[in-house]
Amino acid sequence: MADKITTENLQDFATGATVLGTGGGGDPYVGTLMAEQAIEEYGPVDLIDPRDVPDDALVVPSAMLGAPTVMVEKMPRGTESLDAFRSLERALGQEAYATMSIEAGGLNSTVPIAVAAQLDLPLVDADGMGRAFPEVQMVTLTLGDISASPMSIADEKGNSVFLETVDNQWAEQFARTTSIEMGGSCMIATYPHTGSELRDHAILDSMSLAREIGETIRTASTRSLDPVSELLALTDGFDLFTGKVADVQRRTEGGFAVGEATIEGVGACDGRTLTLEFQNEHLVARDSEEGVVASIPDLITVLDTETAEPITTEGLSYGQRVRVIGMPCSEKWRTDAGLDLVGPAYFDYDIDYTPIETIHR
Amino acid sequence: MADKITTENLQDFATGATVLGTGGGGDPYVGTLMAEQAIEEYGPVDLIDPRDVPDDALVVPSAMLGAPTVMVEKMPRGTESLDAFRSLERALGQEAYATMSIEAGGLNSTVPIAVAAQLDLPLVDADGMGRAFPEVQMVTLTLGDISASPMSIADEKGNSVFLETVDNQWAEQFARTTSIEMGGSCMIATYPHTGSELRDHAILDSMSLAREIGETIRTASTRSLDPVSELLALTDGFDLFTGKVADVQRRTEGGFAVGEATIEGVGACDGRTLTLEFQNEHLVARDSEEGVVASIPDLITVLDTETAEPITTEGLSYGQRVRVIGMPCSEKWRTDAGLDLVGPAYFDYDIDYTPIETIHR
Repeated sequence: MADKITTENLQDFATGATVLGTGGGGDPYVGTLMAEQAIEEYGPVDLIDPRDVPDDALVVPSAMLGAPTVMVEKMPRGTESLDAFRSLERALGQEAYATMSIEAGGLNSTVPIAVAAQLDLPLVDADGMGRAFPEVQMVTLTLGDISASPMSIADEKGNSVFLETVDNQWAEQFARTTSIEMGGSCMIATYPHTGSELRDHAILDSMSLAREIGETIRTASTRSLDPVSELLALTDGFDLFTGKVADVQRRTEGGFAVGEATIEGVGACDGRTLTLEFQNEHLVARDSEEGVVASIPDLITVLDTETAEPITTEGLSYGQRVRVIGMPCSEKWRTDAGLDLVGPAYFDYDIDYTPIETIHR
Repeated sequence: MADKITTENLQDFATGATVLGTGGGGDPYVGTLMAEQAIEEYGPVDLIDPRDVPDDALVVPSAMLGAPTVMVEKMPRGTESLDAFRSLERALGQEAYATMSIEAGGLNSTVPIAVAAQLDLPLVDADGMGRAFPEVQMVTLTLGDISASPMSIADEKGNSVFLETVDNQWAEQFARTTSIEMGGSCMIATYPHTGSELRDHAILDSMSLAREIGETIRTASTRSLDPVSELLALTDGFDLFTGKVADVQRRTEGGFAVGEATIEGVGACDGRTLTLEFQNEHLVARDSEEGVVASIPDLITVLDTETAEPITTEGLSYGQRVRVIGMPCSEKWRTDAGLDLVGPAYFDYDIDYTPIETIHR
């Protein structure tokens, strides 16, 4: 069952992936432009069902790595993602059957679309997180013992760095410092895996979910429906807060966009404050009255009150009227191994993870 | 004309290379141990005349990269230099004809001896600096437009990083941060070049010079001669200072050992002070009365007053009785391009380079 990604439906994929990107995953504007240009030049991209990928076929995810704050200003040249992709194929001595998003996010769901169009490859309807996370090792593929190596990294100047690491945490370390040296962002090809590994360890059907989310947001107003309610129904999500952005503290640190946003409640939330702490992605949402209302690995997303368009962490600014929603993560993340990799403790929070549906039961 | 490096003469090579290492180039003790062990296991190494290397034969230098202060404590596993070397050969699709020192130095002249022994390759009687310098791009090969890429980097844990950079300054940037991530030091294979490039752009015969220097120091006392005078005669060098180490300020910064040593004069130097500023290697020697008495790219080396054994920057400590000598660098470094690459201005000194023989005429 193949579907097409075209210049007509591209925006829905980008919007929906940005919602799943939970504040990170890169700016959808840059990624959409890149993918649009590639589709215009090379034609639509086949979105293929992960169940149709042959067992031993090679899937090579393609992504941008770095601080989203940098990515907004440092435009890619357009060929570096191909450089990274081809260099990995050469090293493996095998051509890729398809490419894939390593995470759901405005940029990192659209970069692989551009790569797929340029290389005439299909894109697998899946990703490695079901959301976005800041670090390389934070993929469900790691839980399946799939190596981030060999990993290929390229910049817009023509530099390339190739990694073979003993584990995925080391891949993160080397890739992160390389991204910093490359000016804060770079293009990567990583986590080469087979069709059967894909089915066992990736998050399936997340691209179609992204499109559905995007369609919902786009069409809700024309159908006189509340897009946020529609969105929550689609994602089993929770309405966490409604308010106005009162303060955003943001810095680029260790190659990440790190910070905190304070939202003052309005309407039903009047008198309360929601604090969002982020490292590229939102990590924890704390309500001044109710305490932690959502935390990693569950998804926290900020939407524009009027349009329900998602706002990334680097797009947050004073005065924005927003709604904050939370969505349950994949069950893969809720295992002991999953929580070790991406739970609150990894990010130095002294809180126990409670599934969002338990908090809001 | 092939010569042999054996466990008998190895120490002379190491001592002489440490003199040429001008305070850096790594600890001779670690390097000598590694080479000794390799020679014992695999047999002596052929030291070949650079003029005998076929025009199109592949020469692959092998080296340790990092802060000498770290190298003293973080012992290599022994196989990482082979990992780096073989990874480069694989990428080039060609077997190396020989290996070579990228710089003269206690460690970086002996690491390639160990590699040569282990891989049953000859070692070329040459190096890429005629001394040691702190950064990757600082080789006469750069002056000959030879690329540091592809460059292969390996650590003792089994991680490997492979670089293809647009110029040698970028190779330095990526390699430096990689060495920091690898714990402060790593093994590299870099600057692959041909026999004809070797003859045009490397510093020839520097390994035999190192051995001569080592022999001179070892045998001078048995011949009741002043080893320092002998050494100066051999290297066209200058006696800069005699004194006692009064202070050493040393820190590891940006992957380098950076600091300053203060030497209080004794004997003929009584009442004067010599200050040595270093970044892995000695950069500038300032006499409290005479001003700058030697600077990069000329060589500055500290010797033990009694034995004339060289002391590296990380070996400098309070109370040592020392003699400081200066030696002229290769004419390749005294060109405009050479001084741009390694002259005082590159190291942020506001001094004009004056050849050491002009200063002391």
